[in-house]
Amino acid sequence: MASNTFGNIFRFTSYGESHGKSIGCVVDGVPPNVLLKEKDIQLFLNRRKPGQSKYVSQRKEKDKVQILSGVFEDKTTGHSIALNINNEDQRSKDYKEIYDKFRPGHADITYEEKYNIRDYRGGGRSSARETAVRVAAGAIASKILNHKLKNKIQVRGSVIQMGPHKINKKLFNWDEVNKNPFFCGDPRAAIDWGVWLDKIRKEGNSTGAIIEVIAENVPRGLGNPVYKKLDSHIAEGLMSINAVKGVEIGTGFNVSSLLGTEANDEIFPDNNGDYFYKTNHSGGILGGISTGQTIVARLAVKPTSSILIERNSIDINRQSIKIKTKGRHDPCVGIRAVPIAEAMLLIILTDQLMMHESQVGPLV
Amino acid sequence: MASNTFGNIFRFTSYGESHGKSIGCVVDGVPPNVLLKEKDIQLFLNRRKPGQSKYVSQRKEKDKVQILSGVFEDKTTGHSIALNINNEDQRSKDYKEIYDKFRPGHADITYEEKYNIRDYRGGGRSSARETAVRVAAGAIASKILNHKLKNKIQVRGSVIQMGPHKINKKLFNWDEVNKNPFFCGDPRAAIDWGVWLDKIRKEGNSTGAIIEVIAENVPRGLGNPVYKKLDSHIAEGLMSINAVKGVEIGTGFNVSSLLGTEANDEIFPDNNGDYFYKTNHSGGILGGISTGQTIVARLAVKPTSSILIERNSIDINRQSIKIKTKGRHDPCVGIRAVPIAEAMLLIILTDQLMMHESQVGPLV
Amino acid sequence: MASNTFGNIFRFTSYGESHGKSIGCVVDGVPPNVLLKEKDIQLFLNRRKPGQSKYVSQRKEKDKVQILSGVFEDKTTGHSIALNINNEDQRSKDYKEIYDKFRPGHADITYEEKYNIRDYRGGGRSSARETAVRVAAGAIASKILNHKLKNKIQVRGSVIQMGPHKINKKLFNWDEVNKNPFFCGDPRAAIDWGVWLDKIRKEGNSTGAIIEVIAENVPRGLGNPVYKKLDSHIAEGLMSINAVKGVEIGTGFNVSSLLGTEANDEIFPDNNGDYFYKTNHSGGILGGISTGQTIVARLAVKPTSSILIERNSIDINRQSIKIKTKGRHDPCVGIRAVPIAEAMLLIILTDQLMMHESQVGPLV
Amino acid sequence: MASNTFGNIFRFTSYGESHGKSIGCVVDGVPPNVLLKEKDIQLFLNRRKPGQSKYVSQRKEKDKVQILSGVFEDKTTGHSIALNINNEDQRSKDYKEIYDKFRPGHADITYEEKYNIRDYRGGGRSSARETAVRVAAGAIASKILNHKLKNKIQVRGSVIQMGPHKINKKLFNWDEVNKNPFFCGDPRAAIDWGVWLDKIRKEGNSTGAIIEVIAENVPRGLGNPVYKKLDSHIAEGLMSINAVKGVEIGTGFNVSSLLGTEANDEIFPDNNGDYFYKTNHSGGILGGISTGQTIVARLAVKPTSSILIERNSIDINRQSIKIKTKGRHDPCVGIRAVPIAEAMLLIILTDQLMMHESQVGPLV
Repeated sequence: MASNTFGNIFRFTSYGESHGKSIGCVVDGVPPNVLLKEKDIQLFLNRRKPGQSKYVSQRKEKDKVQILSGVFEDKTTGHSIALNINNEDQRSKDYKEIYDKFRPGHADITYEEKYNIRDYRGGGRSSARETAVRVAAGAIASKILNHKLKNKIQVRGSVIQMGPHKINKKLFNWDEVNKNPFFCGDPRAAIDWGVWLDKIRKEGNSTGAIIEVIAENVPRGLGNPVYKKLDSHIAEGLMSINAVKGVEIGTGFNVSSLLGTEANDEIFPDNNGDYFYKTNHSGGILGGISTGQTIVARLAVKPTSSILIERNSIDINRQSIKIKTKGRHDPCVGIRAVPIAEAMLLIILTDQLMMHESQVGPLV
Repeated sequence: MASNTFGNIFRFTSYGESHGKSIGCVVDGVPPNVLLKEKDIQLFLNRRKPGQSKYVSQRKEKDKVQILSGVFEDKTTGHSIALNINNEDQRSKDYKEIYDKFRPGHADITYEEKYNIRDYRGGGRSSARETAVRVAAGAIASKILNHKLKNKIQVRGSVIQMGPHKINKKLFNWDEVNKNPFFCGDPRAAIDWGVWLDKIRKEGNSTGAIIEVIAENVPRGLGNPVYKKLDSHIAEGLMSINAVKGVEIGTGFNVSSLLGTEANDEIFPDNNGDYFYKTNHSGGILGGISTGQTIVARLAVKPTSSILIERNSIDINRQSIKIKTKGRHDPCVGIRAVPIAEAMLLIILTDQLMMHESQVGPLV
Repeated sequence: MASNTFGNIFRFTSYGESHGKSIGCVVDGVPPNVLLKEKDIQLFLNRRKPGQSKYVSQRKEKDKVQILSGVFEDKTTGHSIALNINNEDQRSKDYKEIYDKFRPGHADITYEEKYNIRDYRGGGRSSARETAVRVAAGAIASKILNHKLKNKIQVRGSVIQMGPHKINKKLFNWDEVNKNPFFCGDPRAAIDWGVWLDKIRKEGNSTGAIIEVIAENVPRGLGNPVYKKLDSHIAEGLMSINAVKGVEIGTGFNVSSLLGTEANDEIFPDNNGDYFYKTNHSGGILGGISTGQTIVARLAVKPTSSILIERNSIDINRQSIKIKTKGRHDPCVGIRAVPIAEAMLLIILTDQLMMHESQVGPLV
Repeated sequence: MASNTFGNIFRFTSYGESHGKSIGCVVDGVPPNVLLKEKDIQLFLNRRKPGQSKYVSQRKEKDKVQILSGVFEDKTTGHSIALNINNEDQRSKDYKEIYDKFRPGHADITYEEKYNIRDYRGGGRSSARETAVRVAAGAIASKILNHKLKNKIQVRGSVIQMGPHKINKKLFNWDEVNKNPFFCGDPRAAIDWGVWLDKIRKEGNSTGAIIEVIAENVPRGLGNPVYKKLDSHIAEGLMSINAVKGVEIGTGFNVSSLLGTEANDEIFPDNNGDYFYKTNHSGGILGGISTGQTIVARLAVKPTSSILIERNSIDINRQSIKIKTKGRHDPCVGIRAVPIAEAMLLIILTDQLMMHESQVGPLV
């Protein structure tokens, strides 16, 4: 029921299977007169697309997006914007042999249990290929945020842990993030990860990761109380990304170990008649509403379920089988999750901004 | 925008402030002919209500629920069920002195920034008092689940970590959970926690906690793909509980450190023509849909923000103040979060079950 | 599914049966800092309440509304506002004898078919008693509209036909509408209707009516295209009122008989750099969006189904019965439909205004 | 806000402008394992498409639909189904000269007022071209209804009045409806209408129409009370069709002239232990829920606003202009509204059926 729609006021409804004709979405609730070209969206898609290093899937998809509606003379009209991306490099034959088999860790078996039918080619609707659409919708969200708030908000993410290997926070530098194939802000960790991931990849294995995604310069007062909290919305959105098993805000799970005196962020007046918080355990959100501090969210991504090492499973007749998952897979899906998580955060902030404006009026 | 409604088909819309006349909700989408009495709901509320030990708030609320509609001769009619709980033990005078002050860690300041008005008495709408309503709605959810699935599903939770103190999993026993004031399944930890929390409480300080909530015997195939995933819904629902800063499913954040060979749960045929999973890293959910294994979710609760130790903050004129938060507060809000988290999981499972049935038909 | 919620951004969720403890609703999406007292709502309710003349139901209900939440020091806080109205003059014994019978024209039989249970006392949830809640929500909508648009929009309605008796439009005068018990703008028709309705009433019969409800000074550009059109929303809202069997906008059904040259409203510049329409066949709405002209809607109300004349029907055993509907009924429910229709239009305009602002920004 | 989505559980989200690249929609909530081919949808589209007689628009569109997702091996998978129809016969140059002009009766001026931008080519998003998408979604609805209820429900419509010319009900015959270009069930009226409409067309004028659409064999108990009534939903859906200015159910506006004794449909036992209604003033709906009788709805369609006769209007500088609307227009848009209204009724019944099942369980 509406399981293919995300968002409240700014919302998109998506479609498409990994090996179907195309994937895409209809974005609704877009304000009119926002400048928008296909290339604005393409820039976002290019950050996510496969085949860009040996550490990600080798599937060759241009991820060329086409705007079908809702834009006239490079401006949004206020009507629904349809985006379509044709699938080009399907190799459905890679999947012929699994039509009657369930790959462990995948949704094959749960889809079959639920629907009594599935498009087995490349995982069908459960494939991470769907996430390209989130990134495309995120690009539109970004344009809206910039249009409304004059480029104020900045959303960006990075991988802070790959497998058991964490970054050294002291070495973290945003400038490094786009200089390596891992979206890693610690240049030394990036080198180590490369060696380690190469080994994992050659073994046919895979690994998990932790992503941190932040939003800077978010105005105070954004969010909604009770059941549409900004953090609740972020948890929903990030957990909906394929392979994600955990989401935390600010100090997150570690906050449980603290005392009240340590955990609550004290407030101080500054010299300009304004105020500031000394710490940011809250991750920029109190009572579901932004404090004006940086919003900090982390998500845990499990190791890619498709591996080239033989595993035990069953077929649709519930007979024991051994299975290796061929195809072109990411040894660490967490890497490409960075632009996806950024997109989700952009989408959520845009939706929350429009929700705020619908009730309270323009944010200043 | 709809920020006081939770759920899709089974849904409730809530109201009420900590020191207002009453709190309550309207529950919609309830199937007809479900047996329901006020006492069914009262049993759930009694598990959450304050004043039951020295480790929780001493506010004396009977939390007496009244069914105003939607039930006729002890059966649901299919129409909206209104539940009302009068507030009885408000001590608004405790809050007079904070009408112009912001308590650190609370939503006081963000509500003021957002709405330019707030009901400061006891936190108003941001108070955890609202969670009584979730528990009441959870009681109805429980009746529906039992009605539809013949008491099959069992939802229960416990505190697995208080402050830095974890339980010993080997000593865990569900029978212990209701035998101590901490919903703790490890009897030795419960004793230690008592000593420690007593000390914290006497210092006027507070502490965080981690809750684990599980659902056993959930049928396979429950949930929705893509954006209404069962885990996404759980993350949204648990993160919307006051003071929660993190949610994880199954192995959660720790899954990031694993290899693919370790993380994906292998499947084996059993001797009855059925199948089973050897491990449950997935926490009972693959691709947003239940596997039939136990659903496992954990939530991190921050230390109670109201503490009796002086903290730095500002008033509405942005002048520096020192503030202690009087009132009757839980030294560890995580304790009473157990029945709340159970309620949210019941609500989500009921809603997902009805969503499933709306599209696919009755679950068998 | 959400069948007790009306509206998108400004929305209310209602509850209550005719002979239950109370009726009420939770209103969500209300902007903060709108002045609101119980008496503001009471004024609206008083226009609808029964027992005010011999031409309407003699049930004595004070319809005393209580605000349970969402208002602090006479201002809205931005949180959900719960309204409750206790039922006081139930005479459930009037209904004991119909517990196993179906009254023709009523929802008794369809509720039984759908739910296999019903609260038969006074029609339960299907009773027009529910409409008091719409009027209460409409009062809040009115306050919001006035708050946002500085008392610009005026919504008002009248009965323009009772049974077969139409008003003489030339004699219509808004000042007359509140001077007679029929909300009739034609003073001569009001006298004739009185005589005629008295006769109908004494015979134990009932009659239908047509209501016209208008909104003046609606800003241009209000509404949404395609599926959330302003007229579509009005049709939905008015048709949802008990006993309504038709809704039309502007020239309505009669527009079908016209030629294009007659039907489309020509546009002319005025002398102030603005423009005007010569005619208003469109009823103030083109393409789902307001033109700035008066919005004109009409609704057809069927005769009260409860009559004191014996009718053929069946009981729950499907045996033939003769039935007279006792109780205290309106000989023409169309009369009290006037404030209800006004309320629905207020609610819809408020919701559409907030939808507009959410996407496009403040209306000027 | 969600203005391009229609429906609750079975829902579609549409996109596309008259002269854009394509139009289409994403249909969500479809049950799995429903047989569906492109040609099933094409059959519905062919009934609506332009250029089929001189009485409708001469625009040549094949309206060739393509299924992009959600169907695998000719069966629905339970995932979102994207449908796309490329525009082929745009003649945008026909519209160059109106880029700064407002056509009376059209949404040109209200779109401009609302959004401060519009795609003027062929009316852009306000064009009736969008209705092809409704018909396509209606085809899927039809397949679902047949899948669930074994071809029981039959939905069909006809034009019962063109301009001032009504059919003779005594001559009405469903077999005639597809034998003339007017969807007219009275063969004599069809001949008269041909002569008359030819005259109107040659004068460059247009005319309105009234459509009646019915659903036979709808099971008892379908629909929802209060705000999601079946009739309320029908009113919303039919009023959302371009050019519709009125909707009525059953006896509709004429019911207002009746007495209670005439209007309420008496119920009688039949000889098979079942029951029947003697009359159907209710149009098959009581209290928002189906009675099992034929559902009868009528909609009033205004004359096509695009006419070749000069009219007064203004341009975007608010200067007086004379305007004739060139292009290829229907002299009576009411004709092609028949398959559109049928589609909307199919969509609504499917959605209501799924809503019913979500709460109450399978309809028997």
